[in-house]
Amino acid sequence: MGKINQIIANIKPLDERAMAGARIRQDNLTKPQGSLGQLESLSIQVSGIKGEPRPRIIHKVIFTLAGDHGVTRSGVSAYPSDVTPQMVYNFLHGGAAINVLAKHIGARVIVADLGVASTLEPSPVLKDKKVAMGTQNMAERPAMSREEAIRSIETGMELVEEELAKGMDILGTGDMGIGNTTPSSAITAALTGADIVTVTGKGTGLDEGGRNRKVKVIEKALKINRPDREDPIDVLSKVGGFEIGGIVGLILAGARYRIPVVIDGFISGAAALIAASLSPQVKPYLIASHQSAEPGHIRILEHLGLMPLLNLNMRLGEGTGAALGIFLVEASLKILNEMATFAEAGVSEKI
Amino acid sequence: MGKINQIIANIKPLDERAMAGARIRQDNLTKPQGSLGQLESLSIQVSGIKGEPRPRIIHKVIFTLAGDHGVTRSGVSAYPSDVTPQMVYNFLHGGAAINVLAKHIGARVIVADLGVASTLEPSPVLKDKKVAMGTQNMAERPAMSREEAIRSIETGMELVEEELAKGMDILGTGDMGIGNTTPSSAITAALTGADIVTVTGKGTGLDEGGRNRKVKVIEKALKINRPDREDPIDVLSKVGGFEIGGIVGLILAGARYRIPVVIDGFISGAAALIAASLSPQVKPYLIASHQSAEPGHIRILEHLGLMPLLNLNMRLGEGTGAALGIFLVEASLKILNEMATFAEAGVSEKI
Repeated sequence: MGKINQIIANIKPLDERAMAGARIRQDNLTKPQGSLGQLESLSIQVSGIKGEPRPRIIHKVIFTLAGDHGVTRSGVSAYPSDVTPQMVYNFLHGGAAINVLAKHIGARVIVADLGVASTLEPSPVLKDKKVAMGTQNMAERPAMSREEAIRSIETGMELVEEELAKGMDILGTGDMGIGNTTPSSAITAALTGADIVTVTGKGTGLDEGGRNRKVKVIEKALKINRPDREDPIDVLSKVGGFEIGGIVGLILAGARYRIPVVIDGFISGAAALIAASLSPQVKPYLIASHQSAEPGHIRILEHLGLMPLLNLNMRLGEGTGAALGIFLVEASLKILNEMATFAEAGVSEKI
Repeated sequence: MGKINQIIANIKPLDERAMAGARIRQDNLTKPQGSLGQLESLSIQVSGIKGEPRPRIIHKVIFTLAGDHGVTRSGVSAYPSDVTPQMVYNFLHGGAAINVLAKHIGARVIVADLGVASTLEPSPVLKDKKVAMGTQNMAERPAMSREEAIRSIETGMELVEEELAKGMDILGTGDMGIGNTTPSSAITAALTGADIVTVTGKGTGLDEGGRNRKVKVIEKALKINRPDREDPIDVLSKVGGFEIGGIVGLILAGARYRIPVVIDGFISGAAALIAASLSPQVKPYLIASHQSAEPGHIRILEHLGLMPLLNLNMRLGEGTGAALGIFLVEASLKILNEMATFAEAGVSEKI
């Protein structure tokens, strides 16, 4: 917990002076003031995050963290748990959606095993950060110990620190873990107070009967474990997941090192809820890439006061939404940096 | 009118066989079926447009068409008409938002003068396609003659044909014309039957008093000119603009040559209304890049049955929304083409 406290203690407010500089420049570029909407506000936010009135993005990193979930034994997913390691290999071979979209935006993907329930073959492009061989079944007992929850968050922080050294101007979060919409719904219900049924969706493709079963499993998990909503580490340990804890660490460390944190969909959103409960100071560092088709996600975004950039009915995870969001952040900064001002272009201003 | 009729006669339905091939491939890629939402449906639509189950996009073109509007003399814009030619020069020098965003996505920008009300200095990167020196004041008389309306549409078609020869796998529409939200609102009211006040916004930044004046000017223009909603060329000539007519031509020719047409915001939307009135067959070729902050735009999208990809509160025009939309279309095709299938990656399918 020492590392977590230390990181949190060093999260500072956004740089108001840099933001004021960016706002003045936006207002002098050759377009009606405000006419680029969220592209303008995004650029100002990133200026405040980086503490520079004209920040640039060169190095883009998407973290795809993997973990397995004991709760799949209660029949909450349309896919078998074997798919988690299979998809990790798919990431390593470049065949998954996140590989394609990261390449499209020029980002590197960091794949890390936080808690896959099998031993993965070593690979130079896989970060072995396993906390445990998958979580316990939260419908029967806590998903993990408090120590493991802390360890998963610290691991996410270490991943950020390792990549910082190689250059990282923006980071996107991502996840892979069969069954992980179940803990995400449980976390959302626990931390926002929402009814379980309103924040539980069909995940990778349950039918209505499957979704009803999933709601009952989450009800049981919350009843048995009684997570303390005033203690986000308790929530993570009782009904969370290792990759979710890892993403909490990515978010907190991103804010600490003044890196814009582009959060993906529902699973990353559940992690953002935990991170913001640990430190409300992280909120201005967050950029919500998209609104997931999972019904709990809009509840998370509202709770965090975040406006999603995209709403394309996506629900894949991996960081796919974050990749598209990073493209838009880059667009916003290119507007800020590369457009001509009214004076430079000799264009008349408003009457 | 001969050219217009000939182009329209050659607009064919989408290729169902290519779409079926794309759909099968999407369903076999390593992700839950449908989990990439609109990225999946977009890729299938483009397959149908191009008649190939795995189409690729290399050459991207954004057309930014400029024209002036006599109705600015009735005080409907926050900016003086001088800004139209000034912004054209800004486009030619690469300092405008569309230059920055087109560069970001790797598209070339074709800037054409369809009806700027001044003589522009010749430039190798400016297409001189002037139909007239700006429109007449539609609050007093028809904006243009029927012949000029036809000429503007044919000019847009010629622009497409000229670029086809250089390679064009997708096109985006864009506009520049101080005052052009006024004709766009008038066209929207005329062709959708919407109340003028519900489809008239603040344009580049009118105050509430200015907006009320703009509503009255549009009321007067529609009353004096009585455009015939059954005759879209009549609507264009009475209350349209040269760049709007040009965009009608881009859209019709894009559909004719099986090029995906990514439409920008409100002004391009008004042109799409006219194009779809001339030929409902164009609709499946259209991709709505974003929902503009201009209130009339959502009415247009609903009327055309289009779902916008983005909603970032943008209202700049130039093709800026189209540029972002083209990026998403490209993302959708890379997903289709570059991801591994379940069989290729050795990933288990749904239980």
